[in-house]
Amino acid sequence: MKSVSVSLGQRSYSIEIGCGLISRLGVQCAQLGFSGKCAIISDTNVAPLYGSAAEKSLREAGFEPVTVIVKAGETAKSLSNLGHCYDALAAHRMERKSFVMALGGGVVGDLAGFAAASYMRGVPFVQVPTTLLSQVDSSVGGKVGINLKAGKNLAGAFHQPRHVFCDIDTLQTLPERELLAGISEVIKYGIIADAAFFKKLEETMLSLKNKNPDLFTEVIARCCELKAWVVGQDETESGLRAILNFGHTIGHAIEAISGYGKYLHGEAIAIGQAAAAHISAKKTGLSMESVGRIVHLLELTGLPVRVHLTQKQRQKLLSAMTLDKKVSEGVVKFVLIPKLGEAVYGQSVDSDLIQESLDFVDARHGKTS
Amino acid sequence: MKSVSVSLGQRSYSIEIGCGLISRLGVQCAQLGFSGKCAIISDTNVAPLYGSAAEKSLREAGFEPVTVIVKAGETAKSLSNLGHCYDALAAHRMERKSFVMALGGGVVGDLAGFAAASYMRGVPFVQVPTTLLSQVDSSVGGKVGINLKAGKNLAGAFHQPRHVFCDIDTLQTLPERELLAGISEVIKYGIIADAAFFKKLEETMLSLKNKNPDLFTEVIARCCELKAWVVGQDETESGLRAILNFGHTIGHAIEAISGYGKYLHGEAIAIGQAAAAHISAKKTGLSMESVGRIVHLLELTGLPVRVHLTQKQRQKLLSAMTLDKKVSEGVVKFVLIPKLGEAVYGQSVDSDLIQESLDFVDARHGKTS
Repeated sequence: MKSVSVSLGQRSYSIEIGCGLISRLGVQCAQLGFSGKCAIISDTNVAPLYGSAAEKSLREAGFEPVTVIVKAGETAKSLSNLGHCYDALAAHRMERKSFVMALGGGVVGDLAGFAAASYMRGVPFVQVPTTLLSQVDSSVGGKVGINLKAGKNLAGAFHQPRHVFCDIDTLQTLPERELLAGISEVIKYGIIADAAFFKKLEETMLSLKNKNPDLFTEVIARCCELKAWVVGQDETESGLRAILNFGHTIGHAIEAISGYGKYLHGEAIAIGQAAAAHISAKKTGLSMESVGRIVHLLELTGLPVRVHLTQKQRQKLLSAMTLDKKVSEGVVKFVLIPKLGEAVYGQSVDSDLIQESLDFVDARHGKTS
Repeated sequence: MKSVSVSLGQRSYSIEIGCGLISRLGVQCAQLGFSGKCAIISDTNVAPLYGSAAEKSLREAGFEPVTVIVKAGETAKSLSNLGHCYDALAAHRMERKSFVMALGGGVVGDLAGFAAASYMRGVPFVQVPTTLLSQVDSSVGGKVGINLKAGKNLAGAFHQPRHVFCDIDTLQTLPERELLAGISEVIKYGIIADAAFFKKLEETMLSLKNKNPDLFTEVIARCCELKAWVVGQDETESGLRAILNFGHTIGHAIEAISGYGKYLHGEAIAIGQAAAAHISAKKTGLSMESVGRIVHLLELTGLPVRVHLTQKQRQKLLSAMTLDKKVSEGVVKFVLIPKLGEAVYGQSVDSDLIQESLDFVDARHGKTS
């Protein structure tokens, strides 16, 4: 069991990482000072696995939970599902002191978090992330939101959870592909903020893929610490926090043009990280050896680092990038790394170099190995 | 011309009150440091009157405005219109530095404000309130939101504007009924926070109804000052801010059961204030003379202070009240006044006394005069 503190003044909270947390949710939430009504928001994948245990635990501790289930998948982050959540919270007569619990991956966390951020202009929010990706990424930092037709996460809020329970047991039921996608973000933390952690991942990747619980507890805690440090410096993404978007500019665009759902977020980000490493070599002096280590670690994990794009898809991809939130006055800004463990943000990259990085990750050219 | 400062630390802003402000919007927004793209959100009543002038002013100052028009009326504050705004902002390729301008009454302000609060997790927001109600009420304090089927303002955010332009000229085109509804909230400020202001209103009500511009500038500025003082103490409504809800517990419920739109907000709140004055006499020792002055000033204005309710409607009204955001653990809390100019919040009122206050405002019994 490990605990990580996220220091954000009055909005500070803790992340607990360990086994068997779901069966203790009720007691723990009571200790946090909550009482009365609450809503568990989950999806059709996670609710059948952990919904009853969570609800039972809350009920036994004296809460009145209602469970709201949305269809699993990125498409769940829609305005209509947000409306569905609002209506369910209102029907349950939730009050301002009632809390919303997200039980699921990043999609559920983002949707439930935005519902909590905006229902009655904000009710408390507790996260129970059940995927590796959400444990290391969306459980820290309070970014919540939904997708629009025009792009991902285009509507949302900053709403910090009151507490995060990362139950490692849930990783045992996580499909292999989702586990790997989560490791993509784990690797990102090493790349942007901790070279020693990156090295540790190179050394222990096989144990990690075998779901060693102690190793997972340690790795998740380190990722949360790194993200908490960054978010603590810059809660609302006016500066430093942007470094967390390493690999995301191209990654998000790949998700957007291929239709959400074809690539898992972590897979698209793996390709984006390979491309951003290439751009870093050209723009910020990253050594070719480091580029090689990044691409190799992603491949060792079993993540995609190549993508097949037609000329038309490339055009769509460039267009999607300019709609991303990281755009300022029409210029696409990248997070780049001068060396492993260090990142710089707000780097303007011209479209020729973006094109070149797409050549680098192009499945047909295969220049990466 | 008057200016009122709203002191909220980093989120402080000014409200300008005067004539001819709409034609100077562009220059003023440029002085606030904005540039590039922006969106004017307005409705089918206000856009034909002031939309072109606002757009022209912004365009001449170098901005790239797009205008989004929603159907006028309380029903505009819907989730689907929020989606419509999001899509329009995305289609205009608004960025994080772009700003949203609300041009209209409280409904437009609330909808546009929530769109601004949540589009890309928050873009700057400028308000140009064109009704008396929105000038004295929704332009101060940053409460934005939409209605759900289950109740009014049940989803939303706290999002402070960067600047508010109260153009008094717009009151000249405001329908009489809407003007009176706005005066209902003006009177509220006197009741809860400033007995001298209440007295001034008693003395000048006829000039006010005749739209004397200097008097309006002064009255609106005083209301904004009073609200700014309250909001400055308690931005997120954890305490004192609740006093602004005087008359709103019953008022909101009347709006809800009669279908939004039958009563204007200010009209429902006038009835609610008469009822709350009656409860105050019973619970917090308000003198019967003060109850009489309150009811008389509302009547002098031309506002309703009575309502016709069947037994069934009364039941629905009590039920609607318990869904209001001001409920804590199932008990309906009221704002009451011990004397004119002073308010106390969080007062539990049992249903017998609520019933009695409904007798007081019952059109059939007519005990109020």
